[in-house]
Amino acid sequence: MTQPPEAEVRSDAAPQAPVTAAVLVIGDEILSGRTKDQNIGFIADYLTAIGIDLEEVRVVPDVEARIVAALNALRAGYTYVFTTGGIGPTHDDITADAVAKAFGVAIDIDPRAVGVMRARYPDTELTPARLRMARIPDGADLIANPVSAAPGFRIGNVHVMAGVPKIMQAMMDSIAPTLARGRPMLSHTIEAGMGEGALAEGFGAIARANPDTLLGSYPYFDGTRHTTRLVVRARDAARLATVAAAVEALVADLQGRTTPRA
Amino acid sequence: MTQPPEAEVRSDAAPQAPVTAAVLVIGDEILSGRTKDQNIGFIADYLTAIGIDLEEVRVVPDVEARIVAALNALRAGYTYVFTTGGIGPTHDDITADAVAKAFGVAIDIDPRAVGVMRARYPDTELTPARLRMARIPDGADLIANPVSAAPGFRIGNVHVMAGVPKIMQAMMDSIAPTLARGRPMLSHTIEAGMGEGALAEGFGAIARANPDTLLGSYPYFDGTRHTTRLVVRARDAARLATVAAAVEALVADLQGRTTPRA
Repeated sequence: MTQPPEAEVRSDAAPQAPVTAAVLVIGDEILSGRTKDQNIGFIADYLTAIGIDLEEVRVVPDVEARIVAALNALRAGYTYVFTTGGIGPTHDDITADAVAKAFGVAIDIDPRAVGVMRARYPDTELTPARLRMARIPDGADLIANPVSAAPGFRIGNVHVMAGVPKIMQAMMDSIAPTLARGRPMLSHTIEAGMGEGALAEGFGAIARANPDTLLGSYPYFDGTRHTTRLVVRARDAARLATVAAAVEALVADLQGRTTPRA
Repeated sequence: MTQPPEAEVRSDAAPQAPVTAAVLVIGDEILSGRTKDQNIGFIADYLTAIGIDLEEVRVVPDVEARIVAALNALRAGYTYVFTTGGIGPTHDDITADAVAKAFGVAIDIDPRAVGVMRARYPDTELTPARLRMARIPDGADLIANPVSAAPGFRIGNVHVMAGVPKIMQAMMDSIAPTLARGRPMLSHTIEAGMGEGALAEGFGAIARANPDTLLGSYPYFDGTRHTTRLVVRARDAARLATVAAAVEALVADLQGRTTPRA
């Protein structure tokens, strides 16, 4: 359920316009450190797998003006916005109202949302607090929540999801079939076995010579030494293979040179 | 080394103005999902512990215009900005140049930075790529990097740090003694043992009656059931104790009522 669906790769298709996205994480608990976000990485992986480029993330507190400002900036800048957090039943769950305000539409208890909640929990009283979770801005479509019923919603290009990772992940699965997809970014990773400093000159030259590909260099400490992962990214499989081969040749050459010192 | 220093709590001191902060995470690898950020949560915990309120986080790609725009927005809005990523030796490490551009100052290889790198690695050639790590904007102070020498820097209210968590954490330790500190936010967590829906009405009433405290409600799935952590936050210890006691009484009352159904 939490695996992104396979992207449909049509290598013979004409190049498509990139489909872009931003994530807006809403919640004091992330900013205070009390809760460690698990949603950004999941959504990043998910969107990459279906050919949507995540281009920005923001985290803001549970403050209406801050949510509205961030949402209006992001929805104007990207194909899609995905929000997480702030759609529960408590007083600090203000995301739905903030989204309605950002779009300038009314918000009220939505009979469709009440229906799915009542169907799932026929013996639980729908208190005013629980009905808060059925507040949906005018004109929005519901996003199914197979985990705990209370729905998310989509309005314009904004998808409003829960903050609980298990629920958010299920909502992404509900949303995915409705999204436009770009040509997926393909990638190839080369483990360099040496620090960035030794690689940078040759790697930079390959990057400059191949401006249609994205070359990234990610140093890390593997427990005993500082080493580097080199990543080549391209939408075209043939170009990816060509540039990845050039990077592999560079690494082999440098490893040969540095062996006497290793 | 990676534990935040103890905050100096002076309960008799006059209320201080809040000290605020934003984090700017720079890197394509976070947005593609290839690397899962570990720095936001660490910095959030660290700042909270020393009385600095983290109020916003942004993640942007390795694109100069995007870094400059985000940095200028954040540095105007908060007491401090902390950036992570993009200060290594490779072509995609453009943070230092973007920061110089944002501040409208020149940037060049800094003899102080060269000095610390040469002192650490006397037998390693300082190639043009490695010297890239010594590019520091005019007027910046260096931030010590005890892990791998190549320094971060501070300019104005912006602290530029490495993206590798081990190095970033050491840099935070280097920076911490220089930061103004607010009165630390204290917190008390109550494990409710029930879903948010049952709690929301009473919890909201307590929140409305105590606007000087922050009440948060964080639902989660503990493996067998949906339950909730309730968090009370305040800078004043006595107010924290009073409101936390009210929340504990609410939970005890609700647990008593729901026991027959449990």
